[in-house]
Amino acid sequence: MRGLGEFRLLRRLRAKSPPLPPAVLAGMGDDAAVLQPSPGFALVATVDVLVEGKDFHWEWCPAEAVGHKGLTVSLSDVGAMGAIPRYALVALGLPARTPVKRVDALYRGIWEAAEASGVAVVGGDLSEAPCLILSVTLIGEGETDHLIRRSGAKVGETIWVTGPLGRAAAGLCALKAGYRPERSAVKGRRATHIPPKARKAIRETIRAQLYPVARYREGRILAEAGIATAMIDLSDGLASDLTRLAEESRVGARIFADRIPVDPSTRQVAELVGLDPLRLALGGGEDFELLFTSGAASAAIEDALARKGFARPHAVGEICPTDERLTLVGPRGRQEPLGSGFEHFR
Amino acid sequence: MRGLGEFRLLRRLRAKSPPLPPAVLAGMGDDAAVLQPSPGFALVATVDVLVEGKDFHWEWCPAEAVGHKGLTVSLSDVGAMGAIPRYALVALGLPARTPVKRVDALYRGIWEAAEASGVAVVGGDLSEAPCLILSVTLIGEGETDHLIRRSGAKVGETIWVTGPLGRAAAGLCALKAGYRPERSAVKGRRATHIPPKARKAIRETIRAQLYPVARYREGRILAEAGIATAMIDLSDGLASDLTRLAEESRVGARIFADRIPVDPSTRQVAELVGLDPLRLALGGGEDFELLFTSGAASAAIEDALARKGFARPHAVGEICPTDERLTLVGPRGRQEPLGSGFEHFR
Repeated sequence: MRGLGEFRLLRRLRAKSPPLPPAVLAGMGDDAAVLQPSPGFALVATVDVLVEGKDFHWEWCPAEAVGHKGLTVSLSDVGAMGAIPRYALVALGLPARTPVKRVDALYRGIWEAAEASGVAVVGGDLSEAPCLILSVTLIGEGETDHLIRRSGAKVGETIWVTGPLGRAAAGLCALKAGYRPERSAVKGRRATHIPPKARKAIRETIRAQLYPVARYREGRILAEAGIATAMIDLSDGLASDLTRLAEESRVGARIFADRIPVDPSTRQVAELVGLDPLRLALGGGEDFELLFTSGAASAAIEDALARKGFARPHAVGEICPTDERLTLVGPRGRQEPLGSGFEHFR
Repeated sequence: MRGLGEFRLLRRLRAKSPPLPPAVLAGMGDDAAVLQPSPGFALVATVDVLVEGKDFHWEWCPAEAVGHKGLTVSLSDVGAMGAIPRYALVALGLPARTPVKRVDALYRGIWEAAEASGVAVVGGDLSEAPCLILSVTLIGEGETDHLIRRSGAKVGETIWVTGPLGRAAAGLCALKAGYRPERSAVKGRRATHIPPKARKAIRETIRAQLYPVARYREGRILAEAGIATAMIDLSDGLASDLTRLAEESRVGARIFADRIPVDPSTRQVAELVGLDPLRLALGGGEDFELLFTSGAASAAIEDALARKGFARPHAVGEICPTDERLTLVGPRGRQEPLGSGFEHFR
């Protein structure tokens, strides 16, 4: 970075940036981006930050994945409102010693995720910082009466998730334990060869951790069909995010352990690293599946997504009165309080 | 921060947050804020980052000033488009050891600046980071044909600035030299008493550095009156920001040194710290005055602002053909190239 300087870097990025849609009346190169909102739509806006050493580690996270994830986290938030993602602003803080290649790769990750989701990167800011910090603001649009809040869950409704949980957490545990997608042995432990079958599971869970997929398309379908009454994305883990939804809706909830979808890769990796897959599914974050509540018939809910080519969601529990709080029901009916997952500064 | 935790801090901030206007359909406490855009208006969006140790120093910058400035930087960008500032998203990265008092003071600064400018803080993100990093996204609105780009300057037009320059840079130099607004002597240098007259100048310039004022109201008037053809805010210094405007407009420019407004406080502090006030005015950033170009008659321009109670702007130069580049004309007609001011990573 040193030697190139802020303005030349900005010019470079501007030249490489994908073309902008007509609704962007002015993009980079002015004091602010100018955007033409769709008539009759409300805006949704969200910001999320990734910090080097906290949210990702260069040791195992390519810069492209950081960019991809930076956008995905916000896409997931917009998706959880049932809105259409539209515009992104990217604020990047980075050390002066950062190689330009790394900045290029990071933006490649952002732009790829943006193009795939129809998002235009319309502006940003570059600063010097002690470590890499990526802050992505995402602006989306949706019809006011279709947007889904966290606060709409009602007693008696079913709790659904759009896909398997604990996968990204399993991938993170695998990375921390020294597993790498491309390696056939754990680094540092001679002769700890990994059986080929486990390798696939490791690759899959690590991919879920590094390149998560935001379910904004599913969120939009659920919102347009009027199916979801409340919705949140699973960024901090089922236990933690359900707690927030329940608080906003002023309800309690009951989750059935044996209904939580955990895929075979997650189970396999959990076994390798010696962790309980259920704990990964409940406490692990960054799956970016959607959790939603609905009073509609199961078949109607499953069909709405399946008809458009998306995976069938999983019913994992039910909304209860507040005084029942949040409960996990074990396979033999044993009940315990649902924990509350990951939190910063703890 | 440690012990309080992210969620309790968020709840605390949410409880303290000023009330939101009706156009905010959902604020904090959901996946994204929901905003009702004004019919027929375009959106403007900008993001700016302040980094501890680069953009501010705790040694002399109260947390309230950091919050205030974080919002002001973005207000200034929206103002330079001639738009009305509306909604802010605040992403804050901070070390776990940060005292909660400091976070409270920072938000107080943000909220005060927001309330004063009619901006609603509608969302944000909190993360752990190695130093304090504040990223503010601001969304504004304006009529599409009234928004002022950097690219509209034409040869022959006059270059104006809305107020005196170099003041914030003088304040920064004073702080770096050990002057403090409340002290009657420079710290560490015994017997270097500051004469009472200089104290006022020190206080004023330091205030300009710590609590800058964004000229978004002036920007809006210039846009609505159809006066400004191109506009930019002076965040990096006259030389640097004029360079960008000239590049976007594909023109050259001539600035007359003796027309650049420099107030007596700035001159006095420049003398104290041994710097040329003209260099502070040309190269010093963070004045957040607006620079605009116009072909309208001087009286009409001055009146448009004066009539609404704002200071008369200053004509400092003229737009020339590109081949004349950017020139500074000295008091005796001597010409020299205009430098290009502050840049990150240099």
